[in-house]
Amino acid sequence: MTKLKWGMIGGGEGSQIGPAHRLGAQADGHFSFTAGALDVDPAKGKAYAQSLGVAQDRAYGDWKEMLAGEKGREDKLDLVTVATPNNTHFEITKSFLEAGFNVLCEKPMTMTVEEGEEIVKIAEATGQVCAVNYCYSAYPMVRQMRAMVEGGELGAIRTVVTNFSHGHHAAGDDATNPRVRWRYDPAQAGVSGQMADCGIHALHLASFITGDEVRTLSADFASTVEGRVLEDDAMVNFRTEGGIVGRLWTSTIALGRQHGLDIQVFGEKGGVRWASEQPNQVYFHKQGGRIEIIEKGEDGLSDDANRMSRVGIAHPEGFPLAVANIYVDLAARLRGGSANYPTAVDGLRSMAAVYASVDSAKQQGVWVDARPPMFQK
Amino acid sequence: MTKLKWGMIGGGEGSQIGPAHRLGAQADGHFSFTAGALDVDPAKGKAYAQSLGVAQDRAYGDWKEMLAGEKGREDKLDLVTVATPNNTHFEITKSFLEAGFNVLCEKPMTMTVEEGEEIVKIAEATGQVCAVNYCYSAYPMVRQMRAMVEGGELGAIRTVVTNFSHGHHAAGDDATNPRVRWRYDPAQAGVSGQMADCGIHALHLASFITGDEVRTLSADFASTVEGRVLEDDAMVNFRTEGGIVGRLWTSTIALGRQHGLDIQVFGEKGGVRWASEQPNQVYFHKQGGRIEIIEKGEDGLSDDANRMSRVGIAHPEGFPLAVANIYVDLAARLRGGSANYPTAVDGLRSMAAVYASVDSAKQQGVWVDARPPMFQK
Amino acid sequence: MTKLKWGMIGGGEGSQIGPAHRLGAQADGHFSFTAGALDVDPAKGKAYAQSLGVAQDRAYGDWKEMLAGEKGREDKLDLVTVATPNNTHFEITKSFLEAGFNVLCEKPMTMTVEEGEEIVKIAEATGQVCAVNYCYSAYPMVRQMRAMVEGGELGAIRTVVTNFSHGHHAAGDDATNPRVRWRYDPAQAGVSGQMADCGIHALHLASFITGDEVRTLSADFASTVEGRVLEDDAMVNFRTEGGIVGRLWTSTIALGRQHGLDIQVFGEKGGVRWASEQPNQVYFHKQGGRIEIIEKGEDGLSDDANRMSRVGIAHPEGFPLAVANIYVDLAARLRGGSANYPTAVDGLRSMAAVYASVDSAKQQGVWVDARPPMFQK
Amino acid sequence: MTKLKWGMIGGGEGSQIGPAHRLGAQADGHFSFTAGALDVDPAKGKAYAQSLGVAQDRAYGDWKEMLAGEKGREDKLDLVTVATPNNTHFEITKSFLEAGFNVLCEKPMTMTVEEGEEIVKIAEATGQVCAVNYCYSAYPMVRQMRAMVEGGELGAIRTVVTNFSHGHHAAGDDATNPRVRWRYDPAQAGVSGQMADCGIHALHLASFITGDEVRTLSADFASTVEGRVLEDDAMVNFRTEGGIVGRLWTSTIALGRQHGLDIQVFGEKGGVRWASEQPNQVYFHKQGGRIEIIEKGEDGLSDDANRMSRVGIAHPEGFPLAVANIYVDLAARLRGGSANYPTAVDGLRSMAAVYASVDSAKQQGVWVDARPPMFQK
Repeated sequence: MTKLKWGMIGGGEGSQIGPAHRLGAQADGHFSFTAGALDVDPAKGKAYAQSLGVAQDRAYGDWKEMLAGEKGREDKLDLVTVATPNNTHFEITKSFLEAGFNVLCEKPMTMTVEEGEEIVKIAEATGQVCAVNYCYSAYPMVRQMRAMVEGGELGAIRTVVTNFSHGHHAAGDDATNPRVRWRYDPAQAGVSGQMADCGIHALHLASFITGDEVRTLSADFASTVEGRVLEDDAMVNFRTEGGIVGRLWTSTIALGRQHGLDIQVFGEKGGVRWASEQPNQVYFHKQGGRIEIIEKGEDGLSDDANRMSRVGIAHPEGFPLAVANIYVDLAARLRGGSANYPTAVDGLRSMAAVYASVDSAKQQGVWVDARPPMFQK
Repeated sequence: MTKLKWGMIGGGEGSQIGPAHRLGAQADGHFSFTAGALDVDPAKGKAYAQSLGVAQDRAYGDWKEMLAGEKGREDKLDLVTVATPNNTHFEITKSFLEAGFNVLCEKPMTMTVEEGEEIVKIAEATGQVCAVNYCYSAYPMVRQMRAMVEGGELGAIRTVVTNFSHGHHAAGDDATNPRVRWRYDPAQAGVSGQMADCGIHALHLASFITGDEVRTLSADFASTVEGRVLEDDAMVNFRTEGGIVGRLWTSTIALGRQHGLDIQVFGEKGGVRWASEQPNQVYFHKQGGRIEIIEKGEDGLSDDANRMSRVGIAHPEGFPLAVANIYVDLAARLRGGSANYPTAVDGLRSMAAVYASVDSAKQQGVWVDARPPMFQK
Repeated sequence: MTKLKWGMIGGGEGSQIGPAHRLGAQADGHFSFTAGALDVDPAKGKAYAQSLGVAQDRAYGDWKEMLAGEKGREDKLDLVTVATPNNTHFEITKSFLEAGFNVLCEKPMTMTVEEGEEIVKIAEATGQVCAVNYCYSAYPMVRQMRAMVEGGELGAIRTVVTNFSHGHHAAGDDATNPRVRWRYDPAQAGVSGQMADCGIHALHLASFITGDEVRTLSADFASTVEGRVLEDDAMVNFRTEGGIVGRLWTSTIALGRQHGLDIQVFGEKGGVRWASEQPNQVYFHKQGGRIEIIEKGEDGLSDDANRMSRVGIAHPEGFPLAVANIYVDLAARLRGGSANYPTAVDGLRSMAAVYASVDSAKQQGVWVDARPPMFQK
Repeated sequence: MTKLKWGMIGGGEGSQIGPAHRLGAQADGHFSFTAGALDVDPAKGKAYAQSLGVAQDRAYGDWKEMLAGEKGREDKLDLVTVATPNNTHFEITKSFLEAGFNVLCEKPMTMTVEEGEEIVKIAEATGQVCAVNYCYSAYPMVRQMRAMVEGGELGAIRTVVTNFSHGHHAAGDDATNPRVRWRYDPAQAGVSGQMADCGIHALHLASFITGDEVRTLSADFASTVEGRVLEDDAMVNFRTEGGIVGRLWTSTIALGRQHGLDIQVFGEKGGVRWASEQPNQVYFHKQGGRIEIIEKGEDGLSDDANRMSRVGIAHPEGFPLAVANIYVDLAARLRGGSANYPTAVDGLRSMAAVYASVDSAKQQGVWVDARPPMFQK
């Protein structure tokens, strides 16, 4: 099994997402770190890439240089990860897709729905992989819940309730803390604060697990910290194409929630609950039975859950290996195997839901269509 | 300390609420069970009351007989508990109040807002006690959270998130299960299902702890089980008079939640979380600090919390003694001491919020005034 | 159903155990508080008893006066609770038993094994009830575990592991804190500190749930706080008559454990785990299956568990009602029904185990017989 | 930063420990997988190594061939991992150490104390790294607890209580399950079953966190499943050099414990608790304060804890990255930086404690010296 060749844009020294992707790509031996344009400062980026083992001629100063340098090569990159600032995702992803590369893009894939539709069309036209890093969907037990829904263990799903609410922006020190301030400033963050930043992870999970997509929604946004323009606390009620009732709460001022992503899915025959802070267990309540604790690694889990796990029962696995699981799936796909990873369509749907939420919230919660125009019938 | 004289209407043999009230009234030695009209079947009610120690001449066949019998006595009852079917609460409570009795009414206090306003006016006019059994507000640690908010430990409150969602009606066996069916039938249950049954407990807690009242709300109701007319899953977003953002989810199909009442309150300086299934702890996250576990019975709790607790730290106390705490407070009030118990005004506000939720849900979540007309300025 | 007549010795104003017994006796309406000698100060005791509703002529100055006054009455007490200082339990219990009263004695029943054997013999000879307040055995879910063992759901039991370790004496302020100091002083506390105070509760639970008695043990005692003569941290390994392996750890310096009583029972077919801090759930792992959460109040629990519970599933019940359950059982017994409560034999066995532990610990953990002489074959 | 060259012996296709080491070595980019003798079947081992990217000339048929092949090379391996069956660890580790290689050996390092002393002497004489994979000591929050003890946050330590008890051998199917049977057969497993397999991890943790070593111990062994010669349930009481009281329970029949490693450390000023099933939190109870939850990634953790963590607060990390942390430390050491990893001395001490436990258990729990002869004064 030869290693696949992997390159990265962004994720320079000191970034948090960079190491996560490098570990993710390399942990299981699937990808070899072959090329990179890691920093806004070309010299720093080149030096850093080389320090990480990238050959000098494939350590680039910026993404355009990298695109030019890699495009013609015979030993072309198998996958390019885009982990740059949000507002550059669209241009870079588009450019690499058009040049024939497979891309894994950090979320959000784009800043607008229109851009999202464009990426989806390009990806479809080229047949290249365009994945988006909704890495929570790659936790083994999230896969298990999806398999349980798909296999009918929960019966028809009635309601899904998901939260991504933490308290890490509760200090209210926006004035002196630029790392927080920009998130609530439309000029820097776009149309939405927390819904675009975290809410879309929860929304993606809801769709991923239920296998159903959001059709309409109603949102209530609040900016609870003085001076914030964009929302730091939002509630979104939704209905899926299949009629599932959805509830999503996302917040950044929820002191006492350290990570704060969780999801509950309730069906006719049973309910499941999972929380990212204890990711190796699912609480399963079968109608008429007791609550059972499903453990990662136990006998009889779905193939998809097993594929996402490296060690035996009760040995916990965590976030970095969930990111790695995205790469596991991409490697499988690139090698022609079966895989299940978030795609450009997921990236597009998220953006449509964010815009729909903003729209609904501005209109006092009126129900709006949450689908991208291209998927509205 | 002489015992107070207590009478009860409803709560006959086999009911669950009857024993809870009898234990509640008698556990701490405050009340003596003196009179009762316990059953729709007069003979059974009389016999049962006497078997519980009520004198023959104060064991009544129905509430009208009891009212007539007790009204003129010198050794009049100090408190009458009304624990009859919901649609009789108004008439009985009103009649006893007008006859000069103090009343503890089970929730919901009335079936309509108009009735609620009438009770409030009578209670105010007579000066009699009219309490409503929102017993979750009498857990020691709920009192502690209220004291923390009042004392400024959390700073100005930004958001309160509360749920009362369980899975005990998930079977979908309404057709053959009359104990479930009536709850979703407007002819029997009134305008609302789960919001009126459980949602109002959560809403009361939110108001009780924050010391702030709901002003406006937007609701999304769903009937997820086929054949149900009234809602079995509801989301209510609200704003309080003081501008707090509120989120309330209530459901009866949430398999995996055994009791399902919990509340989180987020302020500028800290957040707290409490769940009825583990009622003796509060998780407290002070801004900038770690999550701390506040234990019932630890040193330094509020007087109100201590008053509601009987045994030392880490000896758990539970639901029946929360009911008893309502009686502790009523006894204190009747003896002229300081007390803090849910009143007719709380009963009225609940009913107004239920009607507002129904109204909003019918209009696709439009925001409506949630206050009783008499409190709208 | 007439109320049973109940009297109490000790438990005066300000004590913690007094209110627990009064609530326990009266909460469910089984007993009427009829006589008492509540305080070492006769005048205070009489006044306090009357303030609690005891008639003047049955409010006594001390236990001897009470014994004299109650002995000849036609309307004799049905049950006398002894809640005085430990070193008086034997004399009072003996005297009342011999006078024909039924007794519920606080633990430890006696200070020596010889005294314990004497009580057992008297109780057997008279046929009177002599119960000991091992109240943890009266939690509904403890009864459920016992029923599961008895019914074979766990198969033959292999190992039982129990702890009663808290941190409430970790401050090490013995010099200035007399409420802690006496516990580690042989002159005041007897031969053992924490083993006699809390360890015996855990040991009783182990026997109660497995239905098997301790035969031999090996102990390791430590006095971790300077100046303490008696142990504040002890480990006892034991074997039961039936060959079950036992492990018991008890400590008072275990900071982080607020109550600290828990038990795990492991059998051929399954294991269960219960903790007093979350007393309404049992975690049950059936061999080959998943961990299940058994909830107090769920369908299908044992009769004994149901009898110990007052409210429905997921409404928590706690310590004061576990004490009340001892009275529930005593009332049933006094009325001729079936009951299951800790007896003088349990009290005796505890004392024998304490002395055996002390003996073993002094001999560097040598294994010793843990049975009272009268039960050694 | 050039990658270090890493080789592995054992861990062939289908093994669980192999992938854990490969991920551990490569995840953070420190080591390059350069040579290997992965399988007892030479051909399979060579093929598998090459499939994982090892060059043909460094894919060996067995460890002797590998030793011969690698010994003379200029581009010598920086580290060799030994992950072969237990009874070969000594010979291979010794041979590679003597040939000048740095070694990471799986536990147990040897089968006897004498072998352990020999390895320690060789390692000391050569100055080479000889590490043992006590990987639980490399969890970030274990490092944090060690730092807290070292920094005096808990005061002088009084008692340490640790368990490594699971239920994965509770089925009792030894007769038909060779993967279980060998563990309780002295001919295959040596002198000890579960104490040698898991107990030593717990014991190492106790020493690692307290910074103190076991001096004496008393053990109680049980073989609870019919037919087992070696212990499947053991309790070890111990005292450290510094006088800390230790309690260690280890079992394989503890149904309901999925992984089952936990540790509590109690000092004069505070207590901490950590469990491997929820490895990113430490519960900390400061004397006089509340229980606090310390989160991996929070501000103010020790440098050592931070060095062992890759992602921010509340993003869980798990077992595979704890193994990786051993490699992080080894890489740091090999590059001349500061590091803290389990050494041959730890491996030796474990073996001495196992033999001491066996010895004590055979003598009914007599206290014995638990130190290797070379460390007895």
